[in-house]
Amino acid sequence: MNIIDIISKKKDNKELTYDEIKFAVDKYMIDEVKDYQMSALLMAIVINGMSDDEIYYLTKVMIESGEVLDLSSVDGIVVDKHSTGGVGDKTSLVVLPLVASCSVKIAKMSGRGLGFTGGTIDKLESIEGFNVNLTKEEFINKVNEVGIAITSQTGNLVPADKKIYALRDVTGTTSSIGLIASSIMSKKIASGADKIVLDVKVGKGAFMKNLDDAKKLSNTMIKIGKRFNKEVVAIISNMDYPLGYSVGNAIEVKEAIDTLSLKGDIKFTKLCITIASYMVHIGKNIPIDDAFDMVVENLNNKKGLEKFYELIKSQNGNIESFKIDGNRYEIKSNKNGYLVNIDTLSLAKYVNSLGAGRKSKDDIIDYNVGLVLNKKIGDEVSENDVLGYIITNKQIDDDLIKYFTIENNKVDDYNIILGIEK
Amino acid sequence: MNIIDIISKKKDNKELTYDEIKFAVDKYMIDEVKDYQMSALLMAIVINGMSDDEIYYLTKVMIESGEVLDLSSVDGIVVDKHSTGGVGDKTSLVVLPLVASCSVKIAKMSGRGLGFTGGTIDKLESIEGFNVNLTKEEFINKVNEVGIAITSQTGNLVPADKKIYALRDVTGTTSSIGLIASSIMSKKIASGADKIVLDVKVGKGAFMKNLDDAKKLSNTMIKIGKRFNKEVVAIISNMDYPLGYSVGNAIEVKEAIDTLSLKGDIKFTKLCITIASYMVHIGKNIPIDDAFDMVVENLNNKKGLEKFYELIKSQNGNIESFKIDGNRYEIKSNKNGYLVNIDTLSLAKYVNSLGAGRKSKDDIIDYNVGLVLNKKIGDEVSENDVLGYIITNKQIDDDLIKYFTIENNKVDDYNIILGIEK
Repeated sequence: MNIIDIISKKKDNKELTYDEIKFAVDKYMIDEVKDYQMSALLMAIVINGMSDDEIYYLTKVMIESGEVLDLSSVDGIVVDKHSTGGVGDKTSLVVLPLVASCSVKIAKMSGRGLGFTGGTIDKLESIEGFNVNLTKEEFINKVNEVGIAITSQTGNLVPADKKIYALRDVTGTTSSIGLIASSIMSKKIASGADKIVLDVKVGKGAFMKNLDDAKKLSNTMIKIGKRFNKEVVAIISNMDYPLGYSVGNAIEVKEAIDTLSLKGDIKFTKLCITIASYMVHIGKNIPIDDAFDMVVENLNNKKGLEKFYELIKSQNGNIESFKIDGNRYEIKSNKNGYLVNIDTLSLAKYVNSLGAGRKSKDDIIDYNVGLVLNKKIGDEVSENDVLGYIITNKQIDDDLIKYFTIENNKVDDYNIILGIEK
Repeated sequence: MNIIDIISKKKDNKELTYDEIKFAVDKYMIDEVKDYQMSALLMAIVINGMSDDEIYYLTKVMIESGEVLDLSSVDGIVVDKHSTGGVGDKTSLVVLPLVASCSVKIAKMSGRGLGFTGGTIDKLESIEGFNVNLTKEEFINKVNEVGIAITSQTGNLVPADKKIYALRDVTGTTSSIGLIASSIMSKKIASGADKIVLDVKVGKGAFMKNLDDAKKLSNTMIKIGKRFNKEVVAIISNMDYPLGYSVGNAIEVKEAIDTLSLKGDIKFTKLCITIASYMVHIGKNIPIDDAFDMVVENLNNKKGLEKFYELIKSQNGNIESFKIDGNRYEIKSNKNGYLVNIDTLSLAKYVNSLGAGRKSKDDIIDYNVGLVLNKKIGDEVSENDVLGYIITNKQIDDDLIKYFTIENNKVDDYNIILGIEK
């Protein structure tokens, strides 16, 4: 077996075997297959696509490149949740405590943000003292004791994905549903959960730009799950506009607390209830309507909020000292009309450039930096109304009103949930 | 402009501009574009193809990466000849002196062999003293004085092709008509000739496996020629079987002399006359029939042979000392019947493995090693007839009869010339 034959086979749009994919990835991990060979193979995969079998083999091979977390000592079914990433996505901060409050075990390994998407770990670190570096033992003990634990990473999971992802990023080979699906699913499966709910974002502020692609990605991941005996449900949700009212780190923790206190944005709350309901539905193996009722009840009686505080305390976070510092720069409407669009991606990039996110993985985050939106899509606004504000200690020269579209005619309302695939 | 956008554009099957191709190649030459990025771009090109404009731009950009040989001080039209490479291809050794004997100037830069194809330069070096390393001045002076000179390379022509070709070789991105055409034509155009005759080989012993691809490649190269104001004619010739009766280095020089002495293989002689006729036709701007008559006359009156000896002498070769040493291992027929096939490629690889060719560019060639065929495709053979023999000082364990197919029924004769494209 040699890599040039494998590359040529995929170039000619023929199906690769498990052994061929295993050879390519394993030899790549020890640098016997070179970067320039892997990037040629990846490009052939991106253009010619992969069969279901190939996607399964790639996922399997990537999982086999590292450790698989053993959660068998957790008492009960563990349900994981993954978002494909979007602007202002603090969904995990609301959903996970809410689900844990319904007695479904949450053992969540989460990532840091890179690019325009934030990371749950970064957001939690805006809480003073919050320990995101749990050992395996601490992690599992906390899951058993508190019902929930969130850690940055424990063990060497899927190193092949890390190496291949870094290469894809610099070779124009990111946009492949098969590669995206196997990248996400290899990490989810190696993380050891029994069942998985995926939040697949679609729209201007997400990687998937249209509903068709989001459905394809969802079903590809569901199929992978089946091959590994993992039940998977995908919620497809709208990411044309910022999620909720804030973008940042500390500000998103504040919004999560507001949401768990029934003071959140209505669309964001609906998304959180939907995801939490499906997690409870598959985690407890009860009808979706019963799961929904249970989630709504634990939102109303603040058991979800209590669980979030319990989580923070369990991981040494100090919520009493939590505050958000910084100057506030108001963004004012320059005319009368209706707010019909917000350029989510540009705003996210702008907020990141002020310190809320990283350009490279060694950048240090300013947790205080954030964006708060006072107005939502469809709201009527008058000239000089404050549409939102930026929190930062840096000087702002840019006039951010350019990212907001105000027109004479109201737009139709939009749905936050665009589909459920299972 | 950045390379990831350029790669992504080609991945999405959109046409690249001159500036984009220039950027990719120029930055690759200074390692700002990395191997892994160029290989991804090459794979996208191989799968999605290139437009005529893109092929022209790539050829132009590659030429611009190095020097262009200035042949303006040569007195008269210079016609170049190029073969896409095949087993036992000693065509240049016959054609070039023959054309020069018709007073068309030959200023030929030729390559060394790598892989299964031999190189004209290696063959000439089997003649003691033959100097293939001419300076530019020597080269042009000899073209003016003798009418012909052959050198290995003078100046830094098309370095981008060299770097990209090496990468294509190890990334499964060789099989692209656009890339092959621009690679060949960039070198031909940088070599400074006014007009070009291409010998495009097709069949089991060549890179192009079918006539359709050979025609496409021919017309792609002719189109490139037009954009650079170079008249180009392509002869498509059969490479299913070994060309002539020999494969090796010294043995092919001997066969060239035999052919120029009217003692050569009939099909090989026909190929040489055809190529030479088209070179004289475009070089002297006379009707093809007149060119044909002139070539045949100079073959019959040995003026072609005299020119070959003149060339050898002019470049310090000593033809008097020319001989071929080595043991001869006969290959005998194992049955009665007709010789219907010879596995050209396998035989070539075998002869190369004995020392006739290189696996890597630092390997040293044994000029004596060779294969001589006594029987031709279609010949009737009896058991124990000698089909041919190997010349080598190494021990031969392999029974080479396996590369010869003998059957009861005679096969149809084949044409050596499969088409002329212009």
